[in-house]
Amino acid sequence: MSKLRGNMLIAQSGGPTVVINQSLVGAILEAKKHKEIEGIFGSLFGIKGILTGNIIDLKKEKLSDLKKVANTPCSALGSVRKKPKDEECEEIFKNMQKYNIRYFFYIGGNDSAETAYILSENAKKVGYEFKCFHIPKTIDNDLKENDHTPGYGSAAKFVAMAMLGDNLDNKSLPGIKIDVIMGRHAGFLTAASSLAKIYEDDGPHLIYFPEKPFMIEKFLKEVDEVYKKYNRCLIAVSEGISDEKGEPIAAKFTKEVDSHGNVQLSGTGALGDLLADIVRKELKVDRVRADTFGYLQRSFPGVYSEVDAKEAYKVGEIAVKYAMGKYESGSVSIKREESKKYKVYYEWVPLEKVAKETRNMPDEFINKDFNWVTEKFIEYAKPLIGKLPEIGILKKNKVNF
Amino acid sequence: MSKLRGNMLIAQSGGPTVVINQSLVGAILEAKKHKEIEGIFGSLFGIKGILTGNIIDLKKEKLSDLKKVANTPCSALGSVRKKPKDEECEEIFKNMQKYNIRYFFYIGGNDSAETAYILSENAKKVGYEFKCFHIPKTIDNDLKENDHTPGYGSAAKFVAMAMLGDNLDNKSLPGIKIDVIMGRHAGFLTAASSLAKIYEDDGPHLIYFPEKPFMIEKFLKEVDEVYKKYNRCLIAVSEGISDEKGEPIAAKFTKEVDSHGNVQLSGTGALGDLLADIVRKELKVDRVRADTFGYLQRSFPGVYSEVDAKEAYKVGEIAVKYAMGKYESGSVSIKREESKKYKVYYEWVPLEKVAKETRNMPDEFINKDFNWVTEKFIEYAKPLIGKLPEIGILKKNKVNF
Repeated sequence: MSKLRGNMLIAQSGGPTVVINQSLVGAILEAKKHKEIEGIFGSLFGIKGILTGNIIDLKKEKLSDLKKVANTPCSALGSVRKKPKDEECEEIFKNMQKYNIRYFFYIGGNDSAETAYILSENAKKVGYEFKCFHIPKTIDNDLKENDHTPGYGSAAKFVAMAMLGDNLDNKSLPGIKIDVIMGRHAGFLTAASSLAKIYEDDGPHLIYFPEKPFMIEKFLKEVDEVYKKYNRCLIAVSEGISDEKGEPIAAKFTKEVDSHGNVQLSGTGALGDLLADIVRKELKVDRVRADTFGYLQRSFPGVYSEVDAKEAYKVGEIAVKYAMGKYESGSVSIKREESKKYKVYYEWVPLEKVAKETRNMPDEFINKDFNWVTEKFIEYAKPLIGKLPEIGILKKNKVNF
Repeated sequence: MSKLRGNMLIAQSGGPTVVINQSLVGAILEAKKHKEIEGIFGSLFGIKGILTGNIIDLKKEKLSDLKKVANTPCSALGSVRKKPKDEECEEIFKNMQKYNIRYFFYIGGNDSAETAYILSENAKKVGYEFKCFHIPKTIDNDLKENDHTPGYGSAAKFVAMAMLGDNLDNKSLPGIKIDVIMGRHAGFLTAASSLAKIYEDDGPHLIYFPEKPFMIEKFLKEVDEVYKKYNRCLIAVSEGISDEKGEPIAAKFTKEVDSHGNVQLSGTGALGDLLADIVRKELKVDRVRADTFGYLQRSFPGVYSEVDAKEAYKVGEIAVKYAMGKYESGSVSIKREESKKYKVYYEWVPLEKVAKETRNMPDEFINKDFNWVTEKFIEYAKPLIGKLPEIGILKKNKVNF
């Protein structure tokens, strides 16, 4: 099949980002240019919408509204965490047939790419004719085949800004401060906290990643050393830090699981409080505090990376272009050119290559002590977040009498 | 005494704010205009600096640096939580004599106003000749004699923006979400979350204040009602919510105290997690999450209210003007004119009137069910935070086949 005539359905899935609606609007506005795409429909709450008949007409949305939506954080169509079972696929195709859906676009992370893959494979089996595409987004930056993913730059900017402020807070009222940052398996977002460091004594002084074993004794020793040197210590910790056996530190103290059966790491302050308790007891420091940056990392309005917003729009647009071309299914990947100046290009990849499996921080981004990033990571991440607010400090010439 | 000739000392105390350095720079630049003020010195980490001889020369700071510092969050001179004992006052005056300090300015909340009052009273006793002023700041907005305090508007804007984003997040992935907001005794900051509500179904759906008793049964009933109506519920809770006897809910589960002997409420996710656990168990809802906005509320760079920044600068400037006039001591209070358009004026108040005791949310700002604000609060708070980012939503016309 090359070009099909019929309706298009688009939906959003997984955790939201600040720029996920850029992709939605990018896809809608591109779709409007192609006569083969007759109706442009949205499925509310991911594939749940097509299962329950919650389908909206996106051609009826005003352009001025769509432009505002593009700049608004979080999934405008609603989201879901759900992979379709075989019997649900049948139901989905039955409904797609009813709505004459010939193009399907699913904006999300690797779980969403897997959903697209499942649908695409099942469609072949039952002979349902449609084109099925995944549009990448995830603040975790953990999609395979991508240099980075839409949503990451803005979340990374939020984390860097939060850390910039928290470093100043910790400088004002010195103590030990632990900040817990999102990222179940990939440390990219936690690593972005390093971008807040401007002066030699700035925090974060230590950064811990889910990719490397987190050992309490080593952690305490390192915190103690920093505290003795600067009379304060600011620490960035990934919510996903795990012991040598790969068991998440947080999992030892919580039994809550999400709908994928994963231990709940976000939406709780448990890990930060646990680490603060240990530090307080073992290092006998009075002022030990923990913050968990939480959902603000993926939803805070007005703080976004311009590069990220542009690329998020672009991947939506390009997915529709791919669907208008020779491809029957696939995903859009972002690759970086090997040039001095930051520049990207987009490449088609088959769904199975980005589905399910995730990408970790490469070893070259983590220092040999496993407690900070390398210069290579800084070079990688800086162009993705753009400019941070300027920080002024006093020279502090001492008065001697 | 009217005008004294000698040096001025300025310091910052208590929790930082995003605009506290506006007051510092406002005072420094005003001081430069007066020949009676010879040296302009800064005490590092509040009164600790004058006790330990950590005094810096602020005249040696470049104007361009000072301007950057004014726009930088958190106490540029460092801060402290400490009230001087009688023997420390003696030490302080001995050092002030050495540095020939004749003007003292202390930027902070009610605890800092009390420190200024203690110093001012002790100076009279021992006959140390100086002028002693308090410059207001607190994100809690709980200083007596003030319509509002510098630092509040910016923190309130951060809270409103965070809630704006979290409402969209909660709409994307529906469930029950609890956000814990700073404010030990005063609910002003928690109340500011109401400014995020634009549409009828927007959160926060419920707001709980430290001023009114928090009853678990009532809370669960109200959450359940909202959840049944909207299939989601977003709740703003003050960290200081307390039971009928005035015991903080958080205190029931933590033994940590700060240096003033108060139970530690900030820098921990305990209260949010506790409430989430209760909701999960009692209401049998799967997706229950809690975030504690934490120190980002007082330190996040780049997010500030313009009105707040201007007023923070102004109170620093005016404190120096008062010191150059007839007053020997005092604080600067912000009053609001009874006009339709937002306008303030500044008034001298004696130190003892803003020291120690704090101001709560007036009853007219809390609704009769004690779970939301009144229109009067919205009118009060709106001009203090300025513009919020624009939010776009889809009209969602259903497709019917």
